[in-house]
Amino acid sequence: MEPALHPLCEPLRPLLGTWRGAGHGDYPTIVAFDYNEEITFSHVGKPFVAYVQRTAIAATGLPAHAESGYLRAVGGDEYEFVISSPTGLVEIDRAVVTQRPGFSIEVTAHAVHGTPSAKPVTAILRRISVDADILRYDVSMAAMGLELTHHLHAELRRFVVPTAP
Amino acid sequence: MEPALHPLCEPLRPLLGTWRGAGHGDYPTIVAFDYNEEITFSHVGKPFVAYVQRTAIAATGLPAHAESGYLRAVGGDEYEFVISSPTGLVEIDRAVVTQRPGFSIEVTAHAVHGTPSAKPVTAILRRISVDADILRYDVSMAAMGLELTHHLHAELRRFVVPTAP
Repeated sequence: MEPALHPLCEPLRPLLGTWRGAGHGDYPTIVAFDYNEEITFSHVGKPFVAYVQRTAIAATGLPAHAESGYLRAVGGDEYEFVISSPTGLVEIDRAVVTQRPGFSIEVTAHAVHGTPSAKPVTAILRRISVDADILRYDVSMAAMGLELTHHLHAELRRFVVPTAP
Repeated sequence: MEPALHPLCEPLRPLLGTWRGAGHGDYPTIVAFDYNEEITFSHVGKPFVAYVQRTAIAATGLPAHAESGYLRAVGGDEYEFVISSPTGLVEIDRAVVTQRPGFSIEVTAHAVHGTPSAKPVTAILRRISVDADILRYDVSMAAMGLELTHHLHAELRRFVVPTAP
């Protein structure tokens, strides 16, 4: 039996499950691309929600991006969000949930740190919204010397519904 | 069909698969504890290996720690390792593989960053060795104002063998 969602994670309930869908990426320094994606938000009854995603290039099916991390409850509608990715980046983010008019969560990087060989990224902003079984997100990024610039938009459908209470 | 392991990840091959076993944790600031653990190292054919683990307290079965991240090839036997955890920590690590006399990998944190509410950790050192289907590791940590101090030892058995070439 799966554990009950921790009360401090109740505001995150709309995110739970596995999502599949498609997105479009663009940035001034790259060629635009379409991708497929799977995202999972899961929990074990503790005051955090685990996050993992990966994408594949739509045209070829080849794996593209991946990232994983944890939303850590700090009280109310606010969470700390830590994320790492094979691009060599780690993020310390602040996430704020809004429940009205629909569920959305805005994730702002407090700090982005990179490995010695990582491309320089100085800011990341994610906006995720959930409307019933549709999840949409936008990601903006300040990278390669550019200011915060729109990078990704995707729309996914809930594929696996959590069974936990 | 699973993709072939990226040549730059060949030195990491002994890590691949899912591992299950048990460990013991201790630290001057806490009560010692025994735990069960599952670790997975996986790949998608790109020059990185994904890492995810979680533990449960042996006495109660309740979930305890979790962490995930990516080993990023930079050439030779060296990798950059990024890790995040629901403790609110992210790490930028350097990992060096030694193949003789047996496989081992030493992972040293270049930098440990924490969310505003995270407990202060300033250094983490992991030593992982694989002998056939047994993985053993030790973790030392400098936390709560203490110098690098032994924290965890565990021994796991390969439970799921990767099918990829």
